Amino acid sequence: MTSPFTLHARSSRCPARCGEVKTLHGTILTPVFMPVGTQATVKGVTPENLLDIGAQIILANTYHLFLRPVHELIRGFGCLHRFMNWHGPILTDSGGFQIYSLKELARITEEGAAFKSHLDGSSLFLSPEDAVAVQEALGSDIMMCLDTCIPYPASRDEAEKATALTARWAKRCRAAQHQTGQLLFGIVQGGMYPDLRARSVLDMTEIGFDGYALGGLSVGEPTELMYDMTGRTAELLPAAFPKYVMGVGTPEDLVECVMRGIDMFDCVMPTRNARNGMLFTSRGRLVIKNACYYNDARPVDENCTCYTCRNYSRAYLRHLYMAREIMASQLNTIHNLHYFVHLMADMRRAIGADRFEIFRKEFYDMREQQLPPG
Amino acid sequence: MTSPFTLHARSSRCPARCGEVKTLHGTILTPVFMPVGTQATVKGVTPENLLDIGAQIILANTYHLFLRPVHELIRGFGCLHRFMNWHGPILTDSGGFQIYSLKELARITEEGAAFKSHLDGSSLFLSPEDAVAVQEALGSDIMMCLDTCIPYPASRDEAEKATALTARWAKRCRAAQHQTGQLLFGIVQGGMYPDLRARSVLDMTEIGFDGYALGGLSVGEPTELMYDMTGRTAELLPAAFPKYVMGVGTPEDLVECVMRGIDMFDCVMPTRNARNGMLFTSRGRLVIKNACYYNDARPVDENCTCYTCRNYSRAYLRHLYMAREIMASQLNTIHNLHYFVHLMADMRRAIGADRFEIFRKEFYDMREQQLPPG
Repeated sequence: MTSPFTLHARSSRCPARCGEVKTLHGTILTPVFMPVGTQATVKGVTPENLLDIGAQIILANTYHLFLRPVHELIRGFGCLHRFMNWHGPILTDSGGFQIYSLKELARITEEGAAFKSHLDGSSLFLSPEDAVAVQEALGSDIMMCLDTCIPYPASRDEAEKATALTARWAKRCRAAQHQTGQLLFGIVQGGMYPDLRARSVLDMTEIGFDGYALGGLSVGEPTELMYDMTGRTAELLPAAFPKYVMGVGTPEDLVECVMRGIDMFDCVMPTRNARNGMLFTSRGRLVIKNACYYNDARPVDENCTCYTCRNYSRAYLRHLYMAREIMASQLNTIHNLHYFVHLMADMRRAIGADRFEIFRKEFYDMREQQLPPG
Repeated sequence: MTSPFTLHARSSRCPARCGEVKTLHGTILTPVFMPVGTQATVKGVTPENLLDIGAQIILANTYHLFLRPVHELIRGFGCLHRFMNWHGPILTDSGGFQIYSLKELARITEEGAAFKSHLDGSSLFLSPEDAVAVQEALGSDIMMCLDTCIPYPASRDEAEKATALTARWAKRCRAAQHQTGQLLFGIVQGGMYPDLRARSVLDMTEIGFDGYALGGLSVGEPTELMYDMTGRTAELLPAAFPKYVMGVGTPEDLVECVMRGIDMFDCVMPTRNARNGMLFTSRGRLVIKNACYYNDARPVDENCTCYTCRNYSRAYLRHLYMAREIMASQLNTIHNLHYFVHLMADMRRAIGADRFEIFRKEFYDMREQQLPPG
C-alpha cells in the first residue's frame, strides 16, 4: 500500500508533524484546513477568493449533492471541479454524518442507510457501494467511506455494534472502488471507548486505505475528552498515512489536534459563523453587530492581511451586517477563512522550525486565554 | 455656469450623443449606466467586481444612508468612497423618490418631507437643505436636489403644484450648497404634461445646475408615453449639460432613451432581477430556474465575456439558484451588470462611429423583437 503522504518534519516534543498529500488535482501541504463547500460552492466566496485566501483543498458534501441530484448532472460535466470552477483538490465526505444528523428520518441496516430527503421528504437509500459510486461520479480527489456515526453519550453495546458495522461497510467501500486514481480514506469510529477506537484502527488498517479519518468526534462530548480521544487514536494510526479529524473545529481545537498529530481538518465554523457576524481574530472572537463597532475605523484584526482587513473597517462590516447585505457574508467569510487557513500555515512553519510548543504558547498568550492541560 | 460635460460625438440622424462628465473622483464616459448601491454596497458584488465589469460610477441612496444613519458615520471616515472601498465616482439621489414611495407614511409640506422610517417607524424630517447636507457629508461626486415625485396618473392641478414646489426646493438646494467641488443636478418634474415639463425645464435652467435629471418617469405610465416625455423634455434641456433619466430602465428603455439624447441612467433592475434569477442576454431574458437549464452546459449568453459566462454553465447557475446559495446572487449580478454596462459601451461606440441607428436595428433583430415606433 503506497501512501499519498510525505513527511516533511515533525516536532521533537510532541506528535505534531508537517508534510504533503498528493492528489489528482495537486499536492496539499499539511496540516491543512479544508473550507466546506456543502452544495458545490463555499457559501459567499468565489474560487478566486479561495485561491487568494490560500485555501488548498475544499470539502463537498456527498449527501447534499446526492439529494439534488448534482452527481447525476456532473456525469455530463466530467467532474465537480469543472462544474463549480474550483480546479484544486476536493474531498467529498460520504454522507454518513449528514444521515446521522437526520436522526429519526434515517434508518440504518446492514445493507445501508435509508432516509428521507430533508428537501422534499422523498425516500432515499445509500449503501456503501452507492456512496463510492456517487463520489466517483463527482470525481473528488479524496473519497470517504460510508460510516455510522455514534452519538454521545452511547452505550458500549451501541458503540460496539456501530463500530463493527462501519468496518463491514468500509470493506464494501474499498471493494466497490474503481481504479480512478481517487484516494479513499477509512473512518475510525469507536465512540468514546478507547479500546473500541483501537479496534476500529485495526479494522481499517487491515483493509488498508489511502488515509484515515477520526469520525464521531465533536458530537457533544467535553472538549478535553475529544482531545484525549484524538491523541490516543492518532498515535495508533500508521505514521505513513494522512490523519484527518472530521468536522473539527475551533482555532483552539486545530492547535490542540495538530499537537496530537492530526494532518487534516474541516469545519463549517468559519463560514457559518461569518454569516452570523462572528469573526475570528488573533485576539479571540469579535461579534460585529455589537454597538461598540458603530464607528470603529480599525480593521477586524490589525494582524490580518486578508482582503477584508486590507480594505474595510469594523464600522463598515457592522453596517453591512445590520443592513443584512449579502456583502456582509462575503467579507466576513473571506476574513474567517483567511484566519483559519493562515493559522494552519503558521503551524506548518512552526513545525518546520521545530518551534511548535512556542507557537502554541504564543497563540494562547495572544488571546489571554489559559493553555489547556496536555 | 461651466458644465462638467464635454461632447465627443453625436448622431447625424437622432439626438443620441456621447461625451464625458468630469467629477471629483474621475471622468465618466456617456451614455453611462450606474449600478445602484442602495446601502453603501452594490448587492452581491465587490468594488473589484464592479471595476472588472467596467462600471464607471455607482449610485447610492441618500434615504437609506440617512436612516441608519450612515452619513453621520461617514463624517469620521472622510467620504462614502473610503467607507465602502469604491474609489470611482458616486452619484447620490436626494431621497425624494424613496420618500414618495413611502406613500401614506410621508407628508410633504413647503418646508420639506416628514416621514416615518420603514426600519423602526421613527419620525424623520428631510428638508431640501438637509438633503444637500447629507449628500455633502457623504461626499458624493454628483448630488441631486430634493424633489417631489408626481404619481401616474395625476391631475393637472396636483402635477402643477408638485412641479412648482420642486422648483422652490431646487432653489433652496442650490443656495444650501457649499463649495466642495461636488456637482449638483436639478430634477425636472411636470408629470405627463408636456407644458409643465417645459415649465420645469425653465425653472431649473433659470437656477442653473451642473446637470439635469428627468424625474417622475417609469412610475406606471405606458412605455410609449415615457419615451415621448423623455424625448420632448430632453430636447428642451441645454445641450451643454448632462441629461439623466432617473430609475430607467430595461435594455430597450436604455436604447430608446439614448436615441432621445439621454446621457445617464440608473436602475435596480439588473441587480434585483439577478437575485430573482432573471438574466439579461443579447437574445432576451432567461429565467435560470427553468427546468430546461438543468443540464445545460452553455454559458448564460454565448456572446458575453463576463466572469460568470467565462467560468460557469447555466446548469451550475440553476443549481445555485435552486439551492438558494449566496453565489447565485453574486454570479447573476455580475452577469446582469456586465450586460447593462457593456450595452452602454456598445452604444457609445456606435454613436462615435455615427451608426447608432444600425446598432439599434441590430439590437432588436437579435432579440427577434419589433422595433418600437419613433
